[in-house]
This record gives sequence, C-alpha cells and structure tokens, in this order.
Amino acid sequence: MSGSSRVSRRGLLGGGLSVGAAAGVAGAFAAGRLSAPDTVKSGAPVASYPFHGARQSGIVTPAQDRLHFVALDVTTDDRDQLVALLKAWTDAAARMTTGRSAGPVGAVDGAGNAPPDDTGEALDLPPSRLTITFGFGPGLFTDADGNDRFGIAERRPDALERLPRFSGDVLEPARSDGDLCIQACADDPQVAVHAIRNLVRIGFGTTTVRWSQLGFGRTSTTSTSQSTPRNLFGFKDGTANVKAEEAAALDTHVWVGADDDPRAAWLAGGSYLVTRRINMTIEVWDRQSLEAQEQFVGRTKGTGAPLSGGEEFTDPDFAMAGSAGPIIPVDAHVRVVHPEVNEGVRILRRGYNFVDGSNDVGGLDAGLFFIAYLRDPRTHFIPLQRAMSSSDALMEYLRFTGQALFAVPPGTGEGEYVGQALFEA
Amino acid sequence: MSGSSRVSRRGLLGGGLSVGAAAGVAGAFAAGRLSAPDTVKSGAPVASYPFHGARQSGIVTPAQDRLHFVALDVTTDDRDQLVALLKAWTDAAARMTTGRSAGPVGAVDGAGNAPPDDTGEALDLPPSRLTITFGFGPGLFTDADGNDRFGIAERRPDALERLPRFSGDVLEPARSDGDLCIQACADDPQVAVHAIRNLVRIGFGTTTVRWSQLGFGRTSTTSTSQSTPRNLFGFKDGTANVKAEEAAALDTHVWVGADDDPRAAWLAGGSYLVTRRINMTIEVWDRQSLEAQEQFVGRTKGTGAPLSGGEEFTDPDFAMAGSAGPIIPVDAHVRVVHPEVNEGVRILRRGYNFVDGSNDVGGLDAGLFFIAYLRDPRTHFIPLQRAMSSSDALMEYLRFTGQALFAVPPGTGEGEYVGQALFEA
Repeated sequence: MSGSSRVSRRGLLGGGLSVGAAAGVAGAFAAGRLSAPDTVKSGAPVASYPFHGARQSGIVTPAQDRLHFVALDVTTDDRDQLVALLKAWTDAAARMTTGRSAGPVGAVDGAGNAPPDDTGEALDLPPSRLTITFGFGPGLFTDADGNDRFGIAERRPDALERLPRFSGDVLEPARSDGDLCIQACADDPQVAVHAIRNLVRIGFGTTTVRWSQLGFGRTSTTSTSQSTPRNLFGFKDGTANVKAEEAAALDTHVWVGADDDPRAAWLAGGSYLVTRRINMTIEVWDRQSLEAQEQFVGRTKGTGAPLSGGEEFTDPDFAMAGSAGPIIPVDAHVRVVHPEVNEGVRILRRGYNFVDGSNDVGGLDAGLFFIAYLRDPRTHFIPLQRAMSSSDALMEYLRFTGQALFAVPPGTGEGEYVGQALFEA
Repeated sequence: MSGSSRVSRRGLLGGGLSVGAAAGVAGAFAAGRLSAPDTVKSGAPVASYPFHGARQSGIVTPAQDRLHFVALDVTTDDRDQLVALLKAWTDAAARMTTGRSAGPVGAVDGAGNAPPDDTGEALDLPPSRLTITFGFGPGLFTDADGNDRFGIAERRPDALERLPRFSGDVLEPARSDGDLCIQACADDPQVAVHAIRNLVRIGFGTTTVRWSQLGFGRTSTTSTSQSTPRNLFGFKDGTANVKAEEAAALDTHVWVGADDDPRAAWLAGGSYLVTRRINMTIEVWDRQSLEAQEQFVGRTKGTGAPLSGGEEFTDPDFAMAGSAGPIIPVDAHVRVVHPEVNEGVRILRRGYNFVDGSNDVGGLDAGLFFIAYLRDPRTHFIPLQRAMSSSDALMEYLRFTGQALFAVPPGTGEGEYVGQALFEA
C-alpha cells in the first residue's frame, strides 16, 4: 500500500522466486512487504513462501503481522464437486502466495462475458509473505444430520470432534465451528483479504462463509528470530511458545505422528488447529493497578520477565516465596498454563489481536483471536483450557465468544491438491 | 511488530523529532514504521507528525495505510467535565503522535494502586506516522431532547445538521451519527488502535463509544507523492482527489473560510468530515464481466484510465462516442460524481477498505468506509450523494449502512486544547 513500493502482480507471472527456509527468511526479510519491492527492483528474489511442501505453510512460518481467517460450510453433498473445489483452491493458493492473481486470466485480461478470475484489489501489491493454510472440520466428515455425505466418515480422526463448551464460555454459534477453514497471514492485510475473498469466490455454489475474523497484530512468536509482541492487555504474549527451530518439540507437541491414529493416516505430518475468539473486557482491565495486572499475568508488564525475577525468557520459579504466599500467585496465568503443571504439554500459538467495532456497553469489541496448532486436542488443548477456565485469574477479564477445531492436513506436493490423501488414499 | 525493528516508546520520551512537511515525509518515509527504527538507530529523526499546528493533521497528511475511527456520545451535561476531557485528549494525542505513552507515568511505571496511564500494547512500537483528528457532531451542540447542555448551541454551524437519508440507504443507527469523533490513522494498526483505545479510556465517565470502524487499506491518495490504491471492487480509487499540494483547491473545497458562517467563527480554517459506511455486494460484483465492471466505473480496471483513453490522470472525455451512446456511459460512476456535472465541486476523500466478518447471506461483510473532508456539506456532499443515489450504475452493488457528519475544528496551538475557540472565544 505504500506509495512508492509497488510491484505489479501481473508483472510477477512466473517470476516469483520463493524462499523456503523459514528461519532464514525471517531474518532476511523481517521488513516484510516493504523489503520486497526493493529486491524486485534490483532483480533479487521476492519475499514469499511457497504453497507446496511437506508441511503447510502458515504454521511454523514466522508469524506475519496480519490475519484473515474464514470458516466455511459446505453446501453440496457431491464429493466430486468438493474435490474439484480443493483442486481449484490449491491452484489459486499456489498462485497467490507468489504474488500472482488467483487465476491465469487475472483481473484485467478477461475476455467476452466471463467475469475476471481475480478480483483485482491486490494487483499492485507484492506477495507480502502471504501464507494460506487449509483445515477440515468435523462437519466435513459427518454433517449435522449424521450423514457421511462425502464417503470419508470412516477416516475422521478420533480427536476431531466438536470442542466441548468450557466453564464460563459464552460461545456464539455464528462465530463457532465450520466444515472447512482457511487461514491467510500476510504482512499486508489487503493481501490477506484478497486471498480469502478470492478463495471464497471460487467456492461460490459449493461453500458459504460461516464466520470470518480479521486480526491486526500477531500475539505470538513462531521463530526465535522474532521478538515477542504484545496483546491488548499490554503484556508480551507467547514467550513460551513452541518455535520453528525446536524440531523435537514440534514432533512431540505440534505434528501428528505417523501412528497417532490408524484410521486417519492421511493426517500424519499434519496438525490440529484450535481457534478461540477471546473478548477482553479491556475497560475493566484498564482500571486495575499495574501491580494487580502483573499478579494476574505472573509477569512484569515492561520486560515480560516472570515475577520471580530475571528476564523475559528466564524460567519462572513457582516456589519462590513472596510477602503473602508464592511471589507468582497460584492463580497467575503463567502458572496455570505452564507445562510444569500440565504434564509437560506445550502448544504452538499463532494468535492475533482484534477490534471488531463497538460492544453494547459503550466500549470496544476487542480481544485476542487465539489460534493454536497442536498434536492432539484431547491431550494438548482441552485439559489446558479446563485448567484455565477453572482457576486462571485472567478469566475475570475474558469472554470466550467463539471456538472451532480443524484437522490440518500435511503439506501438498507439486501436482497434488490439498487433502488429496484423505480423498484418494 | 516485525521482530527486529522495535524501538521503545519509553525510550522516545522527549526524543521524537517530528517532521512537519507532509509531502516530504511521504517521500522520505514511504516505508513507514519499518524505516523508523533504522533511523532511530542511526540517530536520525523518527517519522512522526506533530499534533499541534494551524490545521489538524490527518486531513491533508499523506494517507496512512490503517485506520481506527470512533464515534462517541457524551454522557455528561457538565461543560467543565467536557472541557477537561478535551484538554486531557489534547495532551494524550500530542504525546502519542510522537510515539510516547498516553500519559506521563506510562504503562509500566505505575505506583501504588493507580492504574497505569497507558494501556501498554504499543510500548515497543514506533510512532508509525500516527495522526489523531477530532470532530464535533450536531449532538454536541443540541442533544436529542433539544437541550443546549454545554451552552454552545448558538455557535452551532448552520451546516452541521444530521445528514438526510439518501435514496437506497439502509442506515443502522448503531453505525451512524455521534456527538464526537476521533480518527486515528497510522502505518501500524496496533498503533492506531492503541491511540483510540487510550482516548476512549480517558473519556470513561464522560463519553461512551457509539460506533467504531477499522480500515485496513486506504482507498485514496491525499498527496501527489502517493500512488493510487485500489478499493474492493479491484479498481483504483481516488484518482481525482483534492491533494495536499493543491493549495487553492483546498481553500475552495476543503477548508472552511473565515466568512463562511458568522456564528461559527471558531470553525474557520477547519473542515467538515462526512463518513459513509458503504457495504459492497462483492459476491455479485465478482460475477460481472470485466467489460461490465469497467462500464459501471467508467475507467479501465488495469491502469485506471478513463474509458475515453489515455492514462490514469487523463481527463475523461464524456462526449466521445462509443458503439452505443457515449464511450463513458451516462451512468458511469466517474461521470456521475465528476466536478464537470456537479458545479465544479471537489472533495478530499480519505477512505479505507474494510472487512467486518461475515454477513447473513454467506459472504463477507466488506466494503469501503468513506471519509471525506469538505468545506460545506450542503454544497459539497449532499448534492453529490443525491446524484449518486439517483443515477450511479454502481449503486446496484452498494449498501449504505452508516453515516455521520462532524465539524472539524482547525489545528490546536501549543498550550491550547482542541476546540478551545468553540468554548472560550
């Protein structure tokens, strides 16, 4: 969007040399979309991530700053039509992540009475490190009436069930669940919106939008090359996240193992995606003292160090005594969700801050759109959320207004379509 | 938000050397927030705009990429309390536009039981070219019951009346009007959100949020140093905008003249701000052929040139014949709103694209949040909107869901508060 930093998506046709090594990209292209035009002008590669690969991008990829997430319901019972959509989505995603239009004709080369095969609003924008990640919800396997409409019910992973309602949840059906999901992350929100909008357009007649969420500030760090951002409580968030560089931890906590679920071999190497729309009652939070806020979180607001001392990445000392009980209170967020008290469980968070207009009490409809990737929701999410719902001091300032669970297939090889192993194995 | 490009807002205390010449800034700092840390590291000035000046910033300032706009209602009848709020807002706005916290104590230096005077989520972010612009709605002068609660009713400008409903409008009261407005624009949405959130926080007990709108892609160009961005129809938008460099046109079309309204001398040098929330029925639009889309707009989708030929900035030739009638159709948008058929009227647009989740027909709740600054809504907006509502071919793809009008006072001098001349002249 910056005035002088444009490169035509049409001009990029076939020319987007992508950079695959995630950690390296994060360092070299920390400036994101703004660095890309410079490198284009000098003939060097564009900052983009390839769609094809062993894993889907957008999971351990260094978290981009902007999000557009959509959950869709499938409106057909025709398996061929669904597969055709997945193929079309794969083609379009592979194109758009390299900065090209959604289809080969583009936005301005239409002929005759056919609509353009791209909507055009990203025509002048660079790839902006766009990633597009697809997931399959429980409803894809068995619809609301229990029908196996696509002949894949027997391949539904055991863990892929609608999430339970947790204590204190005020979930809205219109912000929850979905048969399919698409996560688009980019450095430029217009690029993320363009991607989702064109995929939704391609799905017209096969899918409808169930809900959609924009996020403007990432609240997690997925690579050690990134520094930790802040959520709308004003605190650093995601300090203890599983990061791209921790291969063993990823295998233990994020990727579905080859033997995890015999009836869902297609999901091996993939992951599960949990979303929770977390409204923060920021007006009430803002009237708490700094000391109280830090007690709720268990970390200092300035540096993010645990209240037991040190720096941001120092391990918290839960045994250290304070003037009244432990210096990190027993209900502090950092303690309640810490692996030490949750059987060693860690997750990969990829959340975003959001503001969605105003609420009905004269404040902002704001909070955190929680996204986590994890190996199994039964071990890596449900117990953690139950612990949080029952004893986290932060709960007083949170309202959970939406949630969803999706199975995220592994990456898509060249010539394949996303989820192919589910439909054709 | 990018990992390696942070500079502490605490460290900037008093150190933010701002750059005032708008056009120069656009060129030098087109890279926005990402360039700022580099220049900080090398000791050069931070890219920021001063709050104080003869005009409010955020009008002819080169349009930043992200918006958070809020409309508020005043809940007190106490004039002193309102004036105290305007003073507190002025102080906080002057601080935040230079990258400092909203109050002198900051987010992490609180003492005792007082809440922090900044919410903290922008602690690590640069100024990001933040501008904060204040406006006064009709309800500030006379409330819904006709009361002159603040003793300023006789100074209400004649032109500051609730906008009429236009043909085809489906206005939602919860997205319309307001006693006060604040427009925050920045290169980083987290910085814009932080500004609005802290000003809303300061107003607690005096104001409530009536509505709030985020925008992610500017749809206008306010300086010749910027290139023209695209709206969600995929077309370049704002080509014919009044620009910062056109001093005479600004005086004619944007700034309120000294003699425009004898009872509102306080507004001389200010402007009027119109907002219209324009939902686009993008799913229907996307099924139109390229040719049809270009006929509706009257320009080509690729370059933005008028259908009568030339380049983006070539004047349209409305007389040129096509195979069936004029080559630019009589109901093409570019013709209906062109100064040539609207008594020479031009406006300064400063709109943003938005996506606010999903709508109730399985699509995206998306469109354009129209913002315009103009000298008098009676000559510069209402006739133009009537022309558009009655004969613009684009109307078929638009739904107007909110609108508001505000008087925007001129700039605030050092030691003054915003709107001071209204309350103390």
